Amino acid sequence: MTRGPVLLTPGPLTTHRDTRRAMLRDWGSRDDAFITMTADLRRRLPKIAGAEQTHVAVPLQGSGTFAVEAAIATLVPRSGKLLVLVNGAYGERMVSIASRLGLTVAAERWAEDQAVEAARVDSLLAADPGITDVAVVHCETTSGLLNPLDAVASVVGRRGRRLLVDAMSSFGALPIGLGSGSSLMASSNKCLEGVPGIAFVLAERSAIAAAKGNCASLSLDLHEQWRGFEANGQWRFTPPVQVVAALVAALDRLDREGGPAARLRRYGENFDVLSTGMARLGFSPFLAPALQAPIIATFHAPREPWYDFAAFSEALADRGFVIYPGKLTRAESFRIGCIGALGAADMRRFVKAAQTALAGMRLLRRPVGVSEGHASARCSSGSRST
Amino acid sequence: MTRGPVLLTPGPLTTHRDTRRAMLRDWGSRDDAFITMTADLRRRLPKIAGAEQTHVAVPLQGSGTFAVEAAIATLVPRSGKLLVLVNGAYGERMVSIASRLGLTVAAERWAEDQAVEAARVDSLLAADPGITDVAVVHCETTSGLLNPLDAVASVVGRRGRRLLVDAMSSFGALPIGLGSGSSLMASSNKCLEGVPGIAFVLAERSAIAAAKGNCASLSLDLHEQWRGFEANGQWRFTPPVQVVAALVAALDRLDREGGPAARLRRYGENFDVLSTGMARLGFSPFLAPALQAPIIATFHAPREPWYDFAAFSEALADRGFVIYPGKLTRAESFRIGCIGALGAADMRRFVKAAQTALAGMRLLRRPVGVSEGHASARCSSGSRST
Repeated sequence: MTRGPVLLTPGPLTTHRDTRRAMLRDWGSRDDAFITMTADLRRRLPKIAGAEQTHVAVPLQGSGTFAVEAAIATLVPRSGKLLVLVNGAYGERMVSIASRLGLTVAAERWAEDQAVEAARVDSLLAADPGITDVAVVHCETTSGLLNPLDAVASVVGRRGRRLLVDAMSSFGALPIGLGSGSSLMASSNKCLEGVPGIAFVLAERSAIAAAKGNCASLSLDLHEQWRGFEANGQWRFTPPVQVVAALVAALDRLDREGGPAARLRRYGENFDVLSTGMARLGFSPFLAPALQAPIIATFHAPREPWYDFAAFSEALADRGFVIYPGKLTRAESFRIGCIGALGAADMRRFVKAAQTALAGMRLLRRPVGVSEGHASARCSSGSRST
Repeated sequence: MTRGPVLLTPGPLTTHRDTRRAMLRDWGSRDDAFITMTADLRRRLPKIAGAEQTHVAVPLQGSGTFAVEAAIATLVPRSGKLLVLVNGAYGERMVSIASRLGLTVAAERWAEDQAVEAARVDSLLAADPGITDVAVVHCETTSGLLNPLDAVASVVGRRGRRLLVDAMSSFGALPIGLGSGSSLMASSNKCLEGVPGIAFVLAERSAIAAAKGNCASLSLDLHEQWRGFEANGQWRFTPPVQVVAALVAALDRLDREGGPAARLRRYGENFDVLSTGMARLGFSPFLAPALQAPIIATFHAPREPWYDFAAFSEALADRGFVIYPGKLTRAESFRIGCIGALGAADMRRFVKAAQTALAGMRLLRRPVGVSEGHASARCSSGSRST
């Protein structure tokens, strides 16, 4: 079904052939056919969060980070104060974005294996009436951790503040209730299983309408982007037309699969096959089961002298699987994505490939002292793969 | 060779089938195969401008405007002053971008059918030592006008200022000498004939190295983007992998065609067939021949009571051609692109289609007063096209 390797990564991920085939034609970006496609996309995205009455979809060219920055730059008032809840790299990224934009930012941090706590957020909001907006990552792609979005949204709403949800790794699979005062950022190439190149914000209609003139960037001004769509159905600036077509095709597949609930079931099966198999091979998961979303799994690197991530991933690549190293600040780890156009059979094949890769490493690498061992590991695996 | 309509637009344009087919697989964006592809892209782009010794390519997710904003935000010092030479919508856009970023901006304007004048730029620079940077559009996509880049660059260089060149519609076809102190912005989907989704800046190595900390946007910070590529060969944030692959395939086609000079010859032939044919049909060009680049041609709308752009373009769409209305502020016009994976035969087919469309309009629309005539025109053409 796919060409190229199987991507067990946080994205870009393995897409369905039909999704990629939707890119085999050209569209004029100001032509009726493309305007109709854009309207279809903008109509369908809010429905996925059950927010079609209150929220509007504002697609944006670029990666997910572009949409996160655009949302912060457009929706957080320049005179406001943003509280960012951080338990991973993507929370930290929102702190960086807001700081560089010159906003007043407070960061509240938890360990990378701990969920953010709504009660602590409640205390912070009670103590600082200057906080106007709160930002949180739904599923932290750093680890795969699922933050308690509903509890946080409820506290933020009760305290009368606005909420920005980075739903990059959850939108399209995990249930998201997008209430009053909340907006959400996500992208084409995670659980929606499109190709990368656009991201989008589901913004409350009243919030985006009120944000005129707030953003200092022309390209990232979501208010103007929204007004452009509303005015003539067109993107303000040239959109990646083939990427948009692929996303619409991917939404068709999501519908045919049975929507986000069915997709979550498939990801859950992928995760179960993966975690059971990896446990059998001796890998221990980084997160407690209660905090783990079936999206990305993080495993501790084995503490064996013969183990080396570069050699492990290279041996897997030889067998057609791409995995990424971990993004944790304190523990050596690697990540396996359970998302994409993949099923339980693919995960079984992966576990088998991991087993073979490990056996090969054990055999080939004798413990000869850690630094020397690592060096020789790279050499031998390099010559093996040529 | 193509599916979908023939796009005679300023872009996205008609791409070659092989370029689109390069999008039929998945890539992990941090995988070696994709890192190699990115390195190949970054190596080849500066060569097109003969600037591989002095300039580095910094690709960026998004449309051309994103790269223009990123270049201004990163390369113009916050304490500097930018002089923008304006004779069309894309010059005006640079004024908007810089103003919104909070930079000090001076705009010098010419009429939309007049080239910018190096002598006037020289006087302005002599009179205002506060101007640190100058920005100019090489080929104004608004009209198709070619500005005298070499003369402007020479004046700016002699006066010791830096130059930013919006080469969106010229890079890959028109010759561009990129000297010391000059940087250039362009995109994947114009004369390079890739699909839209990335743009890039060819920045002087010393200028981009010196620009650390200047950009207030994380996403659009070209210095950080460049440092990311240099550090590990990876894009900082998820790139549109298929779009990158398509651009590399498009560069292969450019090489096979014989490089920019051969491509310019083909565009020149396209333009000649078009302009001769349109003149025969009674259309008059907006620009004097000396100012016209063979990239985009702008024609005055006929001053006939039976003429209506919507009906004209709809009749052409029925025959498989997409064209766009003009973008001029003062004259009703339309634009025909000569770029894309098209040859003289396509342009001949287009002229024939335009002739048929006009004949149909003449026949069907009797002069019944301007406003009534327009209304009935839309109706009749609407029913014809269903």
